Amino acid sequence: MSKLATIVGTNIRQIRKEKGFSQEGLALKAKIDRSYVGRIERGEVNITLEALYALATAIGCDAKTLLP
Amino acid sequence: MSKLATIVGTNIRQIRKEKGFSQEGLALKAKIDRSYVGRIERGEVNITLEALYALATAIGCDAKTLLP
Repeated sequence: MSKLATIVGTNIRQIRKEKGFSQEGLALKAKIDRSYVGRIERGEVNITLEALYALATAIGCDAKTLLP
Repeated sequence: MSKLATIVGTNIRQIRKEKGFSQEGLALKAKIDRSYVGRIERGEVNITLEALYALATAIGCDAKTLLP
């Protein structure tokens, strides 16, 4: 697992929880598979910019705030 | 081509030129195929975060400055 993916995954999880989303709720809103959201949050995936922006839009935050 | 990919590609090209890199020089430094760098700059590719950070590190800028 890369440090970058781990940091971004942790940030997504933290902000998701702050905003009161379940993993499933975020997955539905971002139109991303729920288990994939889980893998992203665990830092197991090198996500694309489109996925990053879809998640940021769904959570309601600036994509850059998810980055180190 | 997505608007996001187009913006990021344009930003990479602009900063690459400002820093005096050729496409080939950047590709070598970032350890990314030169033709792939060309496709990225033309907004034809939905790059991953690792690729974004490799390019930012090679150019010598913060990855976030490449994002809209």
